[in-house]
Amino acid sequence: MLPVDAVLRKVDSSFEESVGRLCELLRIPSVSTDPAYAGDVRRAAQWCADRLAAMGFTVTIHETPGHPILVAHNPGPAGVETPHVLYYGHYDVQPADPVELWNSPPFEPAIVEAERGRRVVARGAADDKGQTMTFMEAFEAWHAVHGSIPIRATVLLEGEEETGSPSLPRFLKEHAEELRADFCLVTDTNAWDVDTPAITTRLRGLLYLEATVTGPSHDLHSGLFGGAVPNPINVLTGILGQIHDADGRVRFDGFYDGVRELPDDLLAQIRGLPLDEAQFLGALGLTRSHGEAGRTLLERIWTRPTCDINGIWGGYTGEGSKTVIPAKASCKLSCRLVPGQDPAAIEASVERFFEERLPADCTVSFRRFSSSPGIEVPTDTPWMQAVRGGLKDATERDGVLIGGGGSIPIVGWFREHLGLDTILVGFGLDDDRIHSPNEKFELKCLRNGIRSHAAILGRLAAGQVG
Amino acid sequence: MLPVDAVLRKVDSSFEESVGRLCELLRIPSVSTDPAYAGDVRRAAQWCADRLAAMGFTVTIHETPGHPILVAHNPGPAGVETPHVLYYGHYDVQPADPVELWNSPPFEPAIVEAERGRRVVARGAADDKGQTMTFMEAFEAWHAVHGSIPIRATVLLEGEEETGSPSLPRFLKEHAEELRADFCLVTDTNAWDVDTPAITTRLRGLLYLEATVTGPSHDLHSGLFGGAVPNPINVLTGILGQIHDADGRVRFDGFYDGVRELPDDLLAQIRGLPLDEAQFLGALGLTRSHGEAGRTLLERIWTRPTCDINGIWGGYTGEGSKTVIPAKASCKLSCRLVPGQDPAAIEASVERFFEERLPADCTVSFRRFSSSPGIEVPTDTPWMQAVRGGLKDATERDGVLIGGGGSIPIVGWFREHLGLDTILVGFGLDDDRIHSPNEKFELKCLRNGIRSHAAILGRLAAGQVG
Repeated sequence: MLPVDAVLRKVDSSFEESVGRLCELLRIPSVSTDPAYAGDVRRAAQWCADRLAAMGFTVTIHETPGHPILVAHNPGPAGVETPHVLYYGHYDVQPADPVELWNSPPFEPAIVEAERGRRVVARGAADDKGQTMTFMEAFEAWHAVHGSIPIRATVLLEGEEETGSPSLPRFLKEHAEELRADFCLVTDTNAWDVDTPAITTRLRGLLYLEATVTGPSHDLHSGLFGGAVPNPINVLTGILGQIHDADGRVRFDGFYDGVRELPDDLLAQIRGLPLDEAQFLGALGLTRSHGEAGRTLLERIWTRPTCDINGIWGGYTGEGSKTVIPAKASCKLSCRLVPGQDPAAIEASVERFFEERLPADCTVSFRRFSSSPGIEVPTDTPWMQAVRGGLKDATERDGVLIGGGGSIPIVGWFREHLGLDTILVGFGLDDDRIHSPNEKFELKCLRNGIRSHAAILGRLAAGQVG
Repeated sequence: MLPVDAVLRKVDSSFEESVGRLCELLRIPSVSTDPAYAGDVRRAAQWCADRLAAMGFTVTIHETPGHPILVAHNPGPAGVETPHVLYYGHYDVQPADPVELWNSPPFEPAIVEAERGRRVVARGAADDKGQTMTFMEAFEAWHAVHGSIPIRATVLLEGEEETGSPSLPRFLKEHAEELRADFCLVTDTNAWDVDTPAITTRLRGLLYLEATVTGPSHDLHSGLFGGAVPNPINVLTGILGQIHDADGRVRFDGFYDGVRELPDDLLAQIRGLPLDEAQFLGALGLTRSHGEAGRTLLERIWTRPTCDINGIWGGYTGEGSKTVIPAKASCKLSCRLVPGQDPAAIEASVERFFEERLPADCTVSFRRFSSSPGIEVPTDTPWMQAVRGGLKDATERDGVLIGGGGSIPIVGWFREHLGLDTILVGFGLDDDRIHSPNEKFELKCLRNGIRSHAAILGRLAAGQVG
């Protein structure tokens, strides 16, 4: 019997205690956006520190300009060279508002029986306390059975994820030596379904700009001047209306430079995923997928770059009518980027696209709010093999490789500041209602997560990697 | 010597008294938008009523849901058949705010010497008390010299023009018999310059719509869904961006149906007008005129239809960024229409233009705020001949026929409810600062106006018409 088998049995036999510990953490209202809860955010950090210390970690709670960052080190078994993993999670949560829409108090975790078995309902149940506890409880089980965890591990937990992690990039830079590991393991994403684990291997980047077109020096009466002066709303919409071609492709010069087609096996895997498109789209009030021609829904979201206008404003927007030609009009515009695209080159191309289409007497100015590249996690590394093997050991299913349409900034920061690849393995579900009332985490997901992390530790320790 | 000659001499010799009477009227703060001044609006109506009664008019002050409407009749010389003219003016004014920007109190008229001679500075000096007094004082002079005015005249003065004349359409309908005349003479427009009178013979109509495009049933995260769902802002700007072709022409189907090219003589007259384009455009922060290819600036404003987007809004418009795909996006859109265009047909065409370009799963809804046709005043009528003759008699210059880019709703209402054409002859100047601090009226314009109306009365009475 391998050492991991006893651990997996322990995970199962002690599962109610694991649920109990998660509920303890969920009772701390660690809302990071609201200064009134700053003490609770710190209390949550301390709770995690106490657990880790009890398992032999050396824990430091670092002060930041915002909420504390916890770093814990475990050297692993003495005298043995093992892989070194950096685990990431966060102990802060979104506000619970609107509280009146909750069926039970958001910080009094309720165990509820539902169609997939029991679930825990509380703010943070999934995002990210429940997910963070999957690896914390895997440590518990290893520690309980073998007296120690089987590899060298560093744990990084922050309390500002829900406010955009303002302190983290600088912290990573300043603590790069201390945090360096073989790879990062982040547990803040979703499984494919309640039984099937998933690894997110692609994330889209984000270029987010604001553009303002200016024409006449002041607002003009559209009767007295209309037809003879440039109208900045006409100009702006005229430019924005040219961004997409008839096939839904983006027309910024060089936009697709560097964009690679997926390898056949990955494409086949994505196309083989059992997605109920009608249900997915029906929940959005839609009957079909829109976008770039010749791509499936999941390809469009996971693998293709986009341009969306996220906001637009200009002229008179109140009730009734006003016959005005405004002096300016603005929009917020973002591109989701895939690996291979250069955010800076695309930003320059967007600006040229506007400038080349401006009529005389009009100007355009830009502000940039985000610029991050798309990310592709290598799938052929020994670490990925270990993680996939562990998922199979724990769930008896192959984990599927999925993409994510959004950005997860920490993945870019770990690459930039620590030089590390990140493997995103998570156990949430699409219907967990994170950030919404009645957030929940399926206990089945919690158990799968703990078992998976326990098995991944087993794989990494068994030297099947590295 | 014709009867009018003595009247014109009287206008000149009594001019200071005319200025004095105008100043009396200007001292009444008849601000129609502010209920606090309702008593003053009524006082201004009464002041006009007293003047008209003193000249032999039968005056009635009619109550309305808002401010009173004054109607006065003068039968003209006994036993003589004369033309019957309906004069229109308004005795209400815009608010004086911001009062601190005035060089003298807005309701204490100041006579100031400037580059074109003396001017009177006060709220309402031009719009429309000074202009209204041009025909009132012409009556005074005729009455003083000959004991009566020489034609049958009806005077209609309202106190709600600055609030959009809410009571007037219904009043016209209900008093149609009483108000019917041969034509209307409205004095609320501009001269070409201080020495050159003008008749406005073309006004553009207005079709004003609000359009809302709806896509997904609720706002979506642009990372999780972007590229696979219809974005209503993308859709809306995609449609709006197609409205104009490369020559600046409007692409709504049938938009130019019924639009006639100007007769050569009118076109030649417009192209011959001494407009300083660089100065006109420079005041707007522009270096050149924009719009439909092959048309001059004045043709574009006076004679060509347009489509301007007057407002647009959707998605996130606050500070910073939000990665949202909104459920809907809206715009306000207006077409300036010229004679020959059918507002209802164009409204239907605009709606089709949107509907034909909507992707699946998107809908569009419309609201209409205005729908009025362009207006062309016949220039070959005897009344127009009399007015042009009178202007020449009074100023020794030919009045120029000009257009107006905006709408003057009363002109449409007089046509609709009374069946009458309107001749717009006014004496304001572009720089009169109507609706702004330090509104003024050149005394030269006042004198030209009184002389012109006196001479027009002479022409009409002399039977040179009808």
